[in-house]
Amino acid sequence: MENNLIFCDIGNTSYHFLDGRKSYKVLAEGFDPSSVQEEVYYISVNASVDKKLSRLSNWHDMRSCIDWDGYYETMGVDRIMACEAIEEGLVIDAGSAITVDLVSEGRFEGGFIYPGLSVMRESYVNISPRLDYSLNFELDLDKMPKNSRDAISYGVLRTLYSEVTRHNKMIYLTGGDATKLAKIFPEAVVDEQLLFKGMKKMMEKRC
Amino acid sequence: MENNLIFCDIGNTSYHFLDGRKSYKVLAEGFDPSSVQEEVYYISVNASVDKKLSRLSNWHDMRSCIDWDGYYETMGVDRIMACEAIEEGLVIDAGSAITVDLVSEGRFEGGFIYPGLSVMRESYVNISPRLDYSLNFELDLDKMPKNSRDAISYGVLRTLYSEVTRHNKMIYLTGGDATKLAKIFPEAVVDEQLLFKGMKKMMEKRC
Repeated sequence: MENNLIFCDIGNTSYHFLDGRKSYKVLAEGFDPSSVQEEVYYISVNASVDKKLSRLSNWHDMRSCIDWDGYYETMGVDRIMACEAIEEGLVIDAGSAITVDLVSEGRFEGGFIYPGLSVMRESYVNISPRLDYSLNFELDLDKMPKNSRDAISYGVLRTLYSEVTRHNKMIYLTGGDATKLAKIFPEAVVDEQLLFKGMKKMMEKRC
Repeated sequence: MENNLIFCDIGNTSYHFLDGRKSYKVLAEGFDPSSVQEEVYYISVNASVDKKLSRLSNWHDMRSCIDWDGYYETMGVDRIMACEAIEEGLVIDAGSAITVDLVSEGRFEGGFIYPGLSVMRESYVNISPRLDYSLNFELDLDKMPKNSRDAISYGVLRTLYSEVTRHNKMIYLTGGDATKLAKIFPEAVVDEQLLFKGMKKMMEKRC
């Protein structure tokens, strides 16, 4: 039975599947979920995908499994699953948005949303073509920059770093940009399957 | 003589004039600088405006007055003038970009660039229509948020705040969004004419 059961985390840009031990991503645009025959337990923050899936009987929305006590109504289900995966610490899910959530003794203690790395980079280009630089993940976080590329990289990364490290918590990194962020949070645990861990844990408890 | 002399700070979106004690802004789009008859001493970070002005003999680019020792080549001239205005502290110029520059004993010690408030807000909307919220400047900076509007506001403002306050310096706020940012930096000095002060000071010294 377990082998035929697939988990799926649907974001703004892609479907992230876990099939047994195999995990893979498919771009949301152009993907037809009715092509999947197996039973799929999913979470989604993508409103246009939600509509399609509600008509497919083998796709099961895990939103209904969530115990909403302690979370808030408009909180993304992906953030909730990430929180469910840990007992203590800060979870950073770095995708098209970067969500940072605090969990203490198994309870969600609040969190914030920062724009994703590629969105941040684009926002500088939109301000001025003079600010068109790739981010430097090797930058010295302890020195105020004296060149344009680092001035932008510091603006994106050091601000986030200053806020995150202030909490003095164990850091868990997940999402498509986790390995990039790991360069500025070398002490963090990188776990690409953190959300699936939360989903499995919830499944065992309540679903 | 002094009365006929006009200062102008040209950003990505507007011309900011200082004429004697009167200061005012004009949108860059559609404005014809040749309509000004007086002698104008200006700085500009707007490449398309630079071209137009180079043909007008009464518009004087103060870029040539700058002593570039201690600054870096691609640094915005607006940031340099803001630094010139103070002897000690952090200058935050909040416009289409938010620049944060450190000055110590009259010397520039480095700085960073953060996207402006409206650009940040838009970047969330571009990630997902579910993240379309106006920023809450009254948010509690000491509490991780448990609602979407504050999660975004905290992401924009608390990250910046954590980095800025870490330096334990006097804070000077200028630029179009200075009064908005003053709500989260209540101890800061707001000075809309900070760049003009830097320009005047430079004028007296070298130009």
